[in-house]
Amino acid sequence: MKVVLSVLVAALGVIAFLVIGVAAQDAAPTQLQQTAQAMFAPLPAVVDNPDNPVTEEKVELGKMLYYDPRLSLSGFVSCNSCHNLATYGVDNLPTSIGHRWALGPRNSPTVLNAALHASQFWDGRAADLEEQAQGPILNPIEMAIPNEGFAVERIASMPGYVDLFEQAFPDAAEPVTYVSIADAIAAFERTLTTPDRFDDFLHGDLDALSSEELEGLQVFINYGCAGCHGGAALGGSVLARFGMVEAYWEATREFVTIDSPTMPMDVGRFAVTQNPADLYVFKTPSLRNITRTYPYFHDGSVWSLEDATQIMARVQLGREIPPDDMAAMMAFYQTLEGEIPAHALQLPVLPAQSDTTPRPSNR
Amino acid sequence: MKVVLSVLVAALGVIAFLVIGVAAQDAAPTQLQQTAQAMFAPLPAVVDNPDNPVTEEKVELGKMLYYDPRLSLSGFVSCNSCHNLATYGVDNLPTSIGHRWALGPRNSPTVLNAALHASQFWDGRAADLEEQAQGPILNPIEMAIPNEGFAVERIASMPGYVDLFEQAFPDAAEPVTYVSIADAIAAFERTLTTPDRFDDFLHGDLDALSSEELEGLQVFINYGCAGCHGGAALGGSVLARFGMVEAYWEATREFVTIDSPTMPMDVGRFAVTQNPADLYVFKTPSLRNITRTYPYFHDGSVWSLEDATQIMARVQLGREIPPDDMAAMMAFYQTLEGEIPAHALQLPVLPAQSDTTPRPSNR
Repeated sequence: MKVVLSVLVAALGVIAFLVIGVAAQDAAPTQLQQTAQAMFAPLPAVVDNPDNPVTEEKVELGKMLYYDPRLSLSGFVSCNSCHNLATYGVDNLPTSIGHRWALGPRNSPTVLNAALHASQFWDGRAADLEEQAQGPILNPIEMAIPNEGFAVERIASMPGYVDLFEQAFPDAAEPVTYVSIADAIAAFERTLTTPDRFDDFLHGDLDALSSEELEGLQVFINYGCAGCHGGAALGGSVLARFGMVEAYWEATREFVTIDSPTMPMDVGRFAVTQNPADLYVFKTPSLRNITRTYPYFHDGSVWSLEDATQIMARVQLGREIPPDDMAAMMAFYQTLEGEIPAHALQLPVLPAQSDTTPRPSNR
Repeated sequence: MKVVLSVLVAALGVIAFLVIGVAAQDAAPTQLQQTAQAMFAPLPAVVDNPDNPVTEEKVELGKMLYYDPRLSLSGFVSCNSCHNLATYGVDNLPTSIGHRWALGPRNSPTVLNAALHASQFWDGRAADLEEQAQGPILNPIEMAIPNEGFAVERIASMPGYVDLFEQAFPDAAEPVTYVSIADAIAAFERTLTTPDRFDDFLHGDLDALSSEELEGLQVFINYGCAGCHGGAALGGSVLARFGMVEAYWEATREFVTIDSPTMPMDVGRFAVTQNPADLYVFKTPSLRNITRTYPYFHDGSVWSLEDATQIMARVQLGREIPPDDMAAMMAFYQTLEGEIPAHALQLPVLPAQSDTTPRPSNR
């Protein structure tokens, strides 16, 4: 029911923003700024969670776990393998490679600004990052740890980690648990916001965007894109049917690269809820850093941002974007390329194993 | 012939150091320091190569390439996948995982201080890091790039990289070549030395080591370990038969973990030269950071440093190390755990791909 409402809200949103868009057409920079401030929001430095407060100790520990391949059975795959912070929190692959080179069914979404999303995973099946972080570790085609106890045993076997968990979770009777592992990773991820020039503009700097970029923003608004791609993340808050006007697989078929895995038709959120209204419903991705998070869509089938934008206009809005508008939108997208926080790029030296650390396995 | 000589030199070295060792037994710290200064050397900050001078621009570029998974066909494997700087330049796996989860035949040696080695790879088949760096990129079970031209095409398709190559190789007619890719990576690796407390001691600080650590150093010298594990890297300069007194596979058999790949008996350098004198000859590894570069030996068959040390004493020297001596040596090894240079741990944000960048492939 909640999702049906979401889809409805999304549809209404498109209509509402089309109306606002028309009103805002050719607006002066000041007016455009006010319109943008109403539709979007600047990125916060941290996205806190009262149930898992972001502390310095937890972030430092979470960063270690994020980069630690020992959270996989093989000792080869870390969170960063598929959400590589050197490449804007993605692997730039159609779909990800996991344990024993298994190919996942969906494209790795960026971890950058993900804390702002209303739900996690392409189908929104996790409520927040704390819940999300528990998934891949145990997924047999991702990190393939056999069970929660094994993950805890691996981490708790390293005295360096135990100290850090005690500092990060000072009130916990048992500091190293499967939940605290995920909570620490999520706390780190809650600091991964990437302020960019569009934020400067939203904060009031009228000179932050060039005239072509301003035009692109105007075009973006005029087409109604912000109906789903609004808010601070320019996306992430709405679950919507991919293919409102036309089936997406018709529009993307020609773009599918030969190296994409052969996938069963992805039914989206329907697989989670079995609700027919959720057929082909996916979470709208964030457009922050969209110039760097290729290839696009839940199946990573499209490499070019122009193609992806054209496909969205076609299957969601039934429109075709002419070259001038497209060029302006591409210029606007550039302003969404932000700065990855320095602390996240400081690779941690990981704690030493001990004689009791469960060994890596390729089974 | 050169290797036969190396083995001979190694054998003589063991005898020579046994003699010095006896003379140095129970020496006062000052005397021990002088003995150590004659056998070892402090780590330099950079190991330059006149044929590939280490410049700031080349190091910065080389670091990007080192961390870039696009130097593999799949887009998933980087130099750092198997020589992870978060875990002291190794993957802590018996043998490494490569393209399509192929298991390599040998353990990944650490990249830290590798520039000090007289040759590269376990069998010494590459003269230096510049030559070494050309190997894994094209190896079908490592990074699996189909040919040199493909690697150049991938990198040269990214304008961000082309700019950096022009800055790093200002006099080159064609800045991006397969050789310049490897040269840049090698230049970065030439900065990866890890000064530790043993360096402080070699530099003259008598208080740098505890009395137990000093005792361990003395024991290390007394047993003749420095015969092969001498110099600045405590190893890396000598090719020697693994199993001078007893076959190594007899001594290591009980330690082989069930997850080690089934390997044909590794004949060592013999596979390179076909010279019977090179049978079971391997490059002596460096003992810098040895507490962190488990599992040990060319086949990664042994996880415990005590076990590995006992096996070396048995198969190379025909001796057994009693518990007190072993405890002291373990304390000494701790002093070889050094500091990874800060610039190496600063993860670079990698250049953007372009429409012409060859796509990743899982073939």
